[in-house]
Amino acid sequence: ESEAKKKSDALKKPTFKVGGRIHWDHWNFSESSPGIDNFEHPGPGPQTGTDPEDLWAFRRIRMEFSGDILENMFWRMQLDFAELEDAAIKDVYIGFSELPYNQKLYLGHQKRPIGLDHWNSSRYNIFLERPLIVESVNEDARRMGIMMHGYTDDESFNWQYGIATLENSAGDRANRSDAGQYSLHFRTTGTPWYDESSGGRGYLHLGFAGMFANPDGDADPGVTDDNEGRFRTRMAQRSERRWMDTGRIPGANWYEVAALEMMLNVGACQWTTEYMNIWMQRDMTTPGTGPDLHFNGFYTQFSYFLTGEYIPVNREVGQIGRVKPFENFFLVDKCCGGRGRGWGAWQIAGRYDYLDISDADINGGVGNMATFGMNWYWTAYSRMQFNLIYSDIKDHAPVNGFTGGTSLTAGVRFGADF
Amino acid sequence: ESEAKKKSDALKKPTFKVGGRIHWDHWNFSESSPGIDNFEHPGPGPQTGTDPEDLWAFRRIRMEFSGDILENMFWRMQLDFAELEDAAIKDVYIGFSELPYNQKLYLGHQKRPIGLDHWNSSRYNIFLERPLIVESVNEDARRMGIMMHGYTDDESFNWQYGIATLENSAGDRANRSDAGQYSLHFRTTGTPWYDESSGGRGYLHLGFAGMFANPDGDADPGVTDDNEGRFRTRMAQRSERRWMDTGRIPGANWYEVAALEMMLNVGACQWTTEYMNIWMQRDMTTPGTGPDLHFNGFYTQFSYFLTGEYIPVNREVGQIGRVKPFENFFLVDKCCGGRGRGWGAWQIAGRYDYLDISDADINGGVGNMATFGMNWYWTAYSRMQFNLIYSDIKDHAPVNGFTGGTSLTAGVRFGADF
Amino acid sequence: ESEAKKKSDALKKPTFKVGGRIHWDHWNFSESSPGIDNFEHPGPGPQTGTDPEDLWAFRRIRMEFSGDILENMFWRMQLDFAELEDAAIKDVYIGFSELPYNQKLYLGHQKRPIGLDHWNSSRYNIFLERPLIVESVNEDARRMGIMMHGYTDDESFNWQYGIATLENSAGDRANRSDAGQYSLHFRTTGTPWYDESSGGRGYLHLGFAGMFANPDGDADPGVTDDNEGRFRTRMAQRSERRWMDTGRIPGANWYEVAALEMMLNVGACQWTTEYMNIWMQRDMTTPGTGPDLHFNGFYTQFSYFLTGEYIPVNREVGQIGRVKPFENFFLVDKCCGGRGRGWGAWQIAGRYDYLDISDADINGGVGNMATFGMNWYWTAYSRMQFNLIYSDIKDHAPVNGFTGGTSLTAGVRFGADF
Repeated sequence: ESEAKKKSDALKKPTFKVGGRIHWDHWNFSESSPGIDNFEHPGPGPQTGTDPEDLWAFRRIRMEFSGDILENMFWRMQLDFAELEDAAIKDVYIGFSELPYNQKLYLGHQKRPIGLDHWNSSRYNIFLERPLIVESVNEDARRMGIMMHGYTDDESFNWQYGIATLENSAGDRANRSDAGQYSLHFRTTGTPWYDESSGGRGYLHLGFAGMFANPDGDADPGVTDDNEGRFRTRMAQRSERRWMDTGRIPGANWYEVAALEMMLNVGACQWTTEYMNIWMQRDMTTPGTGPDLHFNGFYTQFSYFLTGEYIPVNREVGQIGRVKPFENFFLVDKCCGGRGRGWGAWQIAGRYDYLDISDADINGGVGNMATFGMNWYWTAYSRMQFNLIYSDIKDHAPVNGFTGGTSLTAGVRFGADF
Repeated sequence: ESEAKKKSDALKKPTFKVGGRIHWDHWNFSESSPGIDNFEHPGPGPQTGTDPEDLWAFRRIRMEFSGDILENMFWRMQLDFAELEDAAIKDVYIGFSELPYNQKLYLGHQKRPIGLDHWNSSRYNIFLERPLIVESVNEDARRMGIMMHGYTDDESFNWQYGIATLENSAGDRANRSDAGQYSLHFRTTGTPWYDESSGGRGYLHLGFAGMFANPDGDADPGVTDDNEGRFRTRMAQRSERRWMDTGRIPGANWYEVAALEMMLNVGACQWTTEYMNIWMQRDMTTPGTGPDLHFNGFYTQFSYFLTGEYIPVNREVGQIGRVKPFENFFLVDKCCGGRGRGWGAWQIAGRYDYLDISDADINGGVGNMATFGMNWYWTAYSRMQFNLIYSDIKDHAPVNGFTGGTSLTAGVRFGADF
Repeated sequence: ESEAKKKSDALKKPTFKVGGRIHWDHWNFSESSPGIDNFEHPGPGPQTGTDPEDLWAFRRIRMEFSGDILENMFWRMQLDFAELEDAAIKDVYIGFSELPYNQKLYLGHQKRPIGLDHWNSSRYNIFLERPLIVESVNEDARRMGIMMHGYTDDESFNWQYGIATLENSAGDRANRSDAGQYSLHFRTTGTPWYDESSGGRGYLHLGFAGMFANPDGDADPGVTDDNEGRFRTRMAQRSERRWMDTGRIPGANWYEVAALEMMLNVGACQWTTEYMNIWMQRDMTTPGTGPDLHFNGFYTQFSYFLTGEYIPVNREVGQIGRVKPFENFFLVDKCCGGRGRGWGAWQIAGRYDYLDISDADINGGVGNMATFGMNWYWTAYSRMQFNLIYSDIKDHAPVNGFTGGTSLTAGVRFGADF
């Protein structure tokens, strides 16, 4: 009855839900070779070539508001007070639900459907930061656009498609330009194997995504933000600068991305791999232009719950879901004397990353990276994460004479969502 | 009983309500003459004299929190994360309710009561942006101040009066100055005709407002924000610059505004007109001062619901209210096969604007503007708006030799509030 | 039963509470001597040496979100949209509750436990701004850190201890540095006398706090934020600059703070005093370094409710609590004719401040300050505050030749929390 009343109220007024997340990180840049030091501090100035500095920072201070507007519309407004010095917008959209074929239409600032690891929520991802290829292809993930999401009645297939602006507007909430930089997207994923009997402890997720982008490669190099033909990434930590970076590629006319994703889950074990190719066509006329380019990269990762839990999959949108520990972490005095303890859930994981964004005249670098991860889930809504990252960059455009380097970095996160 | 409990709780603790709005806009600057191009890009630089750039932007990402403090106080905190690069404050005030004569006292950042179109909420206004004269006289509407709002028991008359700072503090939340720039305000409106029998589908709203302002016209021109004797506006779109602008008027000593408002509603039709005069007195001593000035402007607009709805009036505060479509927009698969459809509400509208802020030595421009509008109400809380605007500016102070120009602009908004 | 349901829900999902506060201030800088004028406007520029400008400003526009995560965790996210031009973070932390010995562990951005007046909420403090010594030692109070809070079962003792970064990250939410500037903290307070029979109208609160800080005194003076060996404060108002300031002290190696606090409450009267000493050790090698330093300061304040209320104490954390007026302030028309009135609660208060941050080669100034205060509590959640402040500074490092000065300042606040 209460449920019925709630539903009838929803027909009269928009509903309102609040939520959020706090991610507090520490990064220790333990070791780095001189090349990395110069990528981090290219100068000029007294800091030139000094090693990356350690960091205590809030990675996310996020407020989320969402709800339904009467029967068939929805809205979501998500702000992050950590990433930029001012508030960054994350999901900010309105939309229509209950369209034919289980579809929803999203209007506004939202994630682009390319790269499983970016499609997953940062609340659920296994590692602290995204893989090199995923972040390079889909930096910061969200853009202004119009997207349709749908799935089949049996949830064995889902799809997303739409159009987005290429420029990142998270900081200034606006995109003022005549350059016409847009991208078309589509992604479809499915679970050819899904073990209903165990409640989804076993599944095979396969997916394919494509992107057609039209950057403004003949923009005057003095005009900021007007050539989005660029690929760059940090080495899965929070250094000040991105150590791999093609820069804005002169003459970038069109580029296409093809992305494959595979995720196999067997109980407490998960194996995930993504592979992406980027092909870029350049014009003949822009000063500094060059031949067409090809970049690519992949990652493969393995994770295992020492305590036996598993990572669920959301088959309506093709992403991972919330892990629920068998036992929460706690330490309390019992009323009858003695102490009660719970250990939470423990997970170990490893990832290998490869990214090649050097081709012809463009030298963004060739990166190899190995990451060890350990996650301690206190509850289904809070956890502590630890990552140890070894990375190696080669074939980078020279910075103060250096074209590569290696680094060892350790990171820890105290995180909760609500 | 639940109502009684809610009321008794309210006597013990402040109450808390949340809400917000998302307005996502696109502006296409289709045509513009060289004069407009130079007003938009006066230079210097490579962009000088190029045409206005198209825009995708969030016009409003607004969070609203409000409530009551025990029996007779209230508060409201409204932040906008779209308009400025940092959060802009909108309504931020506390106040006393249930004062004699149905009055409420507002302390803090709030709307100044001048210009019906600014007094109306952006959730309800017919056109995307405010009329030229309303925005010129009351730029951004809100200031820090102390205001009283009241109405007669039969709601046939309402009034607002008080004092406000002249400086716009929405961005920096502070007004640090010895200049003493304040303005006195009063406004009274009434509905001599209000058709109770149809629930308010017919009414005549008449109003008068006055403003006495004391800008600091002898401020050193190098001191920012210290001479608020200035009138400016965009041409009802979101160009980068304001194409009509008097600049800070040297010697501005006092100015007065008299404003008349009329709104006649007959069922699905509404006709609204506002007319305002500005008289400015200048001192004799400030370098660059000149003779006293007179500016004026008006707009008249007509709207019609093709689907028969009407625009209600809120007689306690003298502003329009929320439109409720007879049928919401939807498109769903029916359980019994086939598709269900609802069309929402459709409204067409036209507005003519005139603004003259050129007089004597001050040449802010003389503007004429015609706007065609079409609104598609999906629900009472969401709509899509379309505006096509032709504007013509003359008699503007020369910018790179140009004193006027014409432009054709189209805008669309996807909007919802909750 | 409803309580039981609420509790069982809390075991399944995080809970969410919202709150906030609005403080709207006016400061009138009535009188100031030329020394103060030069401290406020040191130039260069046309404003050099002109008197402090009056201010209308929001001192706090604060949103608070908090809740529990299942049984034994909690979180809190508090943002202030008034103090900085962008949002400043205040409390942003997650933590564990129900640890042995009534302890809670806090992870994130939180108050450092030093100085009763900063430990108290700005919602409850008697005066508009903090005492000189408290603000000097604990500027802005909050830092990123890890703290434990606990209390004895009978609430007669409580304690806080932990580690924090020295750098203030409220604005940029990050602390990127290899300088390793941390501080250790502990504080314990108790109420040797607490009159249970009157519900806490009488008590004696005594406390002691210590701080061991490790600033980076040999940082290159060109590197911003890298030497936190600095003490500074406004004169308990909102001038643009801090008139007392040691600057970043070259060679600051370690410093220790010892703080004593005493609060005696007898019904409507309260007497509070805090006294702190700072000892700083400096290295021998940094350019500009000097001998070790000793600074100190205290304040003593007295308050009295004309209407008989009292200030409660929170014995679990050692801070004052919310004042509840016997009668709220209101003015209403009665249904039966005539007007009803309530007068709220009225409190007068006085404070004397002394701060000496001049020693050897460092001349931050020696300040004496007398404050008269009057508070009008409209309800338990809203009040109007008035302060009149006379301050005198001597022995300051010369600014345009001035080493001291006097000022008379009046401030008023309209405040509410919810």
